[in-house]
Amino acid sequence: MRVVVPFAAETPKTRLESVFSPDERSRFARAMLADVLRAIAETGHEPTVVSTAPLAVADLELPEAVAAVTSVAVDERPLTDAVNARLPGGDGAADGIGAAGDSDRNPVAVVMADLALATPGALEGVLTTAADVAIAPGRGGGTNALVVRHPAFRADYHGTSYLDHCEIAQSVGADLETVDSFRLGTDIDEPADLVEVLVHGRAGDRALARLHEFGFVLDDRGGRVGVAREGDLASE
Amino acid sequence: MRVVVPFAAETPKTRLESVFSPDERSRFARAMLADVLRAIAETGHEPTVVSTAPLAVADLELPEAVAAVTSVAVDERPLTDAVNARLPGGDGAADGIGAAGDSDRNPVAVVMADLALATPGALEGVLTTAADVAIAPGRGGGTNALVVRHPAFRADYHGTSYLDHCEIAQSVGADLETVDSFRLGTDIDEPADLVEVLVHGRAGDRALARLHEFGFVLDDRGGRVGVAREGDLASE
Repeated sequence: MRVVVPFAAETPKTRLESVFSPDERSRFARAMLADVLRAIAETGHEPTVVSTAPLAVADLELPEAVAAVTSVAVDERPLTDAVNARLPGGDGAADGIGAAGDSDRNPVAVVMADLALATPGALEGVLTTAADVAIAPGRGGGTNALVVRHPAFRADYHGTSYLDHCEIAQSVGADLETVDSFRLGTDIDEPADLVEVLVHGRAGDRALARLHEFGFVLDDRGGRVGVAREGDLASE
Repeated sequence: MRVVVPFAAETPKTRLESVFSPDERSRFARAMLADVLRAIAETGHEPTVVSTAPLAVADLELPEAVAAVTSVAVDERPLTDAVNARLPGGDGAADGIGAAGDSDRNPVAVVMADLALATPGALEGVLTTAADVAIAPGRGGGTNALVVRHPAFRADYHGTSYLDHCEIAQSVGADLETVDSFRLGTDIDEPADLVEVLVHGRAGDRALARLHEFGFVLDDRGGRVGVAREGDLASE
């Protein structure tokens, strides 16, 4: 199965700007991307990063086996258009795949680049359904992972895309399965989400390593658990 | 399996006070509790609400079959103490169950009362593991559902309880399984969480019905999806 990972190379994770420097944001976004690519590769699939700007795979410091199966396509279009071009029944010419006319038949998965908690097991839950369309929803009605086997289904990532995708599937006669996963449901968008990386990140995860490198630790001084830089904790 | 549902009857959902009147908060909290009890009953288990104050089952307007298997125990102690008294190897006298000396052997589940998205299927994922301790974590390092089969395990709900529970399990030699569920991972604590009820609530869910009754709808006017009262949307 083709697994597409859209990546906003030029404006990574703007909602994290209150806690990260621009350089840290960029490095953290690439670390999450690397973790997602590794998890996909470990399911036996070959990921294609669809990046808004040129991206050197070498810069992602992927394990050799992951780098060997990862490709990058540059597509400056908005997310929805870039994804739809690559779905079954899309324009087919995207990334030179499907030019032989088989693009209508091959299922395509779309996995967001900020699913820092994604594991091969969690991904397999959504990759292996038999449904025409399978979705692992994210918080706020988002579509964090999407698998499309139906040639008439088109994505729309604006607003509550999960609900829109349910409607679109129905309108084209595609059955839809919703996959229940905390790991896939957790996209790392804003400072509070960093807690999840510190709590559920696993040894070897790049994103977790970056947070440690930047000095972030869990902060449960208040009523809710948050994150803080170690130095800030010590100075108070 | 005994399934315990702790319920703060007197201070329900204080973090929702910015969007709900006190009466609405109380009714919404009871609606979520009713949904959780129904989901538990549909797995074939009999829930016990452990409430900080007297609570009439009749007031929960449960379906007859759910009310028939639901019991209420009043326990004014803090959450951790009230739960620990009921775990295998706890004081055994709680709720009059286990007085025959079998409390060490029977597994106990603890399911939070604000898991408005809980379904029988999601609950079965955590109720049916073979592990000494099984946890469905919530956002922010919480422990949303917990199943304990090991007599030496004790709960501690303060702070990042999921991590604490992992440590406690290890310290008593209990193996621990983490159950990956978006539905069980979603506790409804603050206004942004109401989006999840509106997006993923199912026909017949009391909590969803309450939100509709109170006039809440999804609000995707801003960059992120939130909730608003229908009247407020119309007037802007």
